Amino acid sequence: MNAPAKVPPPAYDLEAFAASLGDVPVETDAKTLQKKSRDFFWFSPVLKRELQGKVAELIVVPRDEADVVRVASAAARHRVPVTIRGGGTGNYGQCVPVQGGVVLDMGALSAIEWQKGARLRVGAGRKMHLIDAETRKQGYELRMHPSTKRMASIGGFAAGGSGGVGSVTYGGLRELGNITGARVISLEETPRVFELKGDAALKICHGWGTTGIITALEMPLAPAFDWIDVIVAFKDFMTAVRFGHELALTDGVVKKLVTPIDWPIPAYFQGMEQHFPKGSAAVIAMIADHSIEPFRSLAAAHKGEITYEKATDESMGARPLYELTWNHTTLLALNVDRDITYLQSLYPPFGFLEKVAEITSLFPRDEVIHHFEFTRYAGLPTGSGLPLIKYTTDERLNEIMEIYRSHGVFIADPHIWMLEDSAGYKSADADLMGFKREVDPLGICNPGKMRTYVPLR
Amino acid sequence: MNAPAKVPPPAYDLEAFAASLGDVPVETDAKTLQKKSRDFFWFSPVLKRELQGKVAELIVVPRDEADVVRVASAAARHRVPVTIRGGGTGNYGQCVPVQGGVVLDMGALSAIEWQKGARLRVGAGRKMHLIDAETRKQGYELRMHPSTKRMASIGGFAAGGSGGVGSVTYGGLRELGNITGARVISLEETPRVFELKGDAALKICHGWGTTGIITALEMPLAPAFDWIDVIVAFKDFMTAVRFGHELALTDGVVKKLVTPIDWPIPAYFQGMEQHFPKGSAAVIAMIADHSIEPFRSLAAAHKGEITYEKATDESMGARPLYELTWNHTTLLALNVDRDITYLQSLYPPFGFLEKVAEITSLFPRDEVIHHFEFTRYAGLPTGSGLPLIKYTTDERLNEIMEIYRSHGVFIADPHIWMLEDSAGYKSADADLMGFKREVDPLGICNPGKMRTYVPLR
Repeated sequence: MNAPAKVPPPAYDLEAFAASLGDVPVETDAKTLQKKSRDFFWFSPVLKRELQGKVAELIVVPRDEADVVRVASAAARHRVPVTIRGGGTGNYGQCVPVQGGVVLDMGALSAIEWQKGARLRVGAGRKMHLIDAETRKQGYELRMHPSTKRMASIGGFAAGGSGGVGSVTYGGLRELGNITGARVISLEETPRVFELKGDAALKICHGWGTTGIITALEMPLAPAFDWIDVIVAFKDFMTAVRFGHELALTDGVVKKLVTPIDWPIPAYFQGMEQHFPKGSAAVIAMIADHSIEPFRSLAAAHKGEITYEKATDESMGARPLYELTWNHTTLLALNVDRDITYLQSLYPPFGFLEKVAEITSLFPRDEVIHHFEFTRYAGLPTGSGLPLIKYTTDERLNEIMEIYRSHGVFIADPHIWMLEDSAGYKSADADLMGFKREVDPLGICNPGKMRTYVPLR
Repeated sequence: MNAPAKVPPPAYDLEAFAASLGDVPVETDAKTLQKKSRDFFWFSPVLKRELQGKVAELIVVPRDEADVVRVASAAARHRVPVTIRGGGTGNYGQCVPVQGGVVLDMGALSAIEWQKGARLRVGAGRKMHLIDAETRKQGYELRMHPSTKRMASIGGFAAGGSGGVGSVTYGGLRELGNITGARVISLEETPRVFELKGDAALKICHGWGTTGIITALEMPLAPAFDWIDVIVAFKDFMTAVRFGHELALTDGVVKKLVTPIDWPIPAYFQGMEQHFPKGSAAVIAMIADHSIEPFRSLAAAHKGEITYEKATDESMGARPLYELTWNHTTLLALNVDRDITYLQSLYPPFGFLEKVAEITSLFPRDEVIHHFEFTRYAGLPTGSGLPLIKYTTDERLNEIMEIYRSHGVFIADPHIWMLEDSAGYKSADADLMGFKREVDPLGICNPGKMRTYVPLR
């Protein structure tokens, strides 16, 4: 799948580039270069093989937007590839500099520019948990965040993420309305500034940082309820899934996370396994405190046993339950078993339960281990599955994906690093491609990730 | 449909009852008796014929719960029918004393007992707009309200309503979680107090005041966003419906109301008709101010023309747009044309658009005039239609309902006053019936509305 891009790696004069940066801070020590040229691509044995060892020649750390403009101009003049980096929590090598050049660490652009009620404008480099820490003071929080909230930056999430904790209410990040504005700097000799609003703001989504440098975002906020972390144990996985599905469909119960997991997943949860009865399936959920009584009624109606109920705690050392879900499940499993990898699936909203029963019957229980995160997809509740896979060979991995697909379940292959191979893009989406032509005419913005892009100059 | 109940009207000694009330306030003048024995049943020509002239012998106006207990005990001892009344904004004669007796006006039980964040406990008699007026100070508001918010009481809405403005997000009132607690007084010689929590609180829903006297409710609240009233004009009704449907499915855009209306409905909107282009269909919506830009993008994508955009204003003399929707549409049409009545339909969530196209093709456009309020039903967005009907005969009215039903659209006949004939009850729901046995063993609580109930004593 990961055929190389047709664009040859550009030649460039790094020294001349570095000299033209003036006092923009840079980092050059080998350890930092290595560390900041990586993300969580090693969740995939395929990507691990293919992306390991790709290292930037220089890390540039702009202090503000003026620095970003300076870097963008210098990169354009010297044709230096620029790979933009937030928290580095992605899983597809989005911030791996596959053609070398420099990595742009956006961490310092982290100011909250303003907050007006449920509207926020924030620097792209701000960590998501540091956004909520501020906005919660006024009663608001981000609508959704990945399980890596405590590491991930808002810019990285917008550019490379798809949804997360909160998507059971608001749908995916790319749903209209979930990003309301973006400020993007083009990579040109004289960089231009783009202020995108309304549906145009969605152009920056899931472009993997190939479409210019996002410096600020406008995000709509959600009410910051007091969330309760809950674990409910069930006798078997399908009972857990049925409960989760009904909970997802119950609009009167306010929730942020609904994750059914099959045994033996809880056995991977080191330090938390005592909250999961041995051999049982479970649902992990986040429920608004004012919805906890009806939630308990629903759990009782499904014969679930509540084994954990505690206010969500994101303080240092604490373990919010969302850090057991989404792709943290894979991380925790990998800590115990190095042969584990995962898949990304999206089930059809209609006939969801029947489809889950069908798919789970197709694989040995120790080869494909299921969990779902409920989400809304185009307005309809459904399950986004991130099953753990006991990896044997690339062939078997591809075969498993083909079996899913042939049974009508959408698979976004997480073992690729080409944008076009991801999330159903055949060639890069027209809007994305058109926007890339605007902001990256030279093809130096995260080059090598968009196979079908031909630079204008 | 409105076959009389099998229970014969009880005989009672009103004077003895009145004497035992002590200083509980009562009203006896003919005008008040008439006024407080009515609701909006006259929207239906059938109910108008059948319920007109049913008048209570006494209006009792308890000042507090102690008064309610006194009334309940006296009524039980003297076998006096008690019909409970809030704002009297229902449409099925729920608060018409069909077997005489007394009407209990709950208006004075209107205190907010407490508010803790998104939780509220409030007296059943409080008007809904006076709830929001208080809770909005802390950033919260009721999740949903009928179009009669400025007249309706919360107790009446809970007992007799089904949903309303806000249901596009939270679903119907009876969805688990939308009422979290209720306090109910039984009608017995020694009245008992029931504190219902969790799913048990739903027992009081849609029982039409036949299941004891609700004195207080616990309601979960929603964030009180700044709402914007919007009108978008479209070339034809199906285009308006398609836009409304997509808006309902767009979880990233926060909204409280989505109502597509066909021409000539706007012609009935006296004083507001200038905001609707002549001959055009339209969508009336309430959008959170922080979602207005993506809303505008969506409207533009559907070639809608925004003809009105203004902060929702509920102050005296102002006209919030929700007062053009739900059953206010019928009210405004009746002001212009006395031959108008209406139906209540619920479309299937799957194949919704095709079904609307099918149904609208079955009737002359001047006999059945369509509007929808989008709602969530069991977690899925769909349209609740309240079409205006140009009434000719009962036979034709029934025929229209049968045509809807034979095409797979659910009809809740609004031309009945028997609970069992309403909203799909064949016999009264088991839970409701069991609860009624607890709180009304003598069958004196709004008697004559539950045909299948046989008193215990």
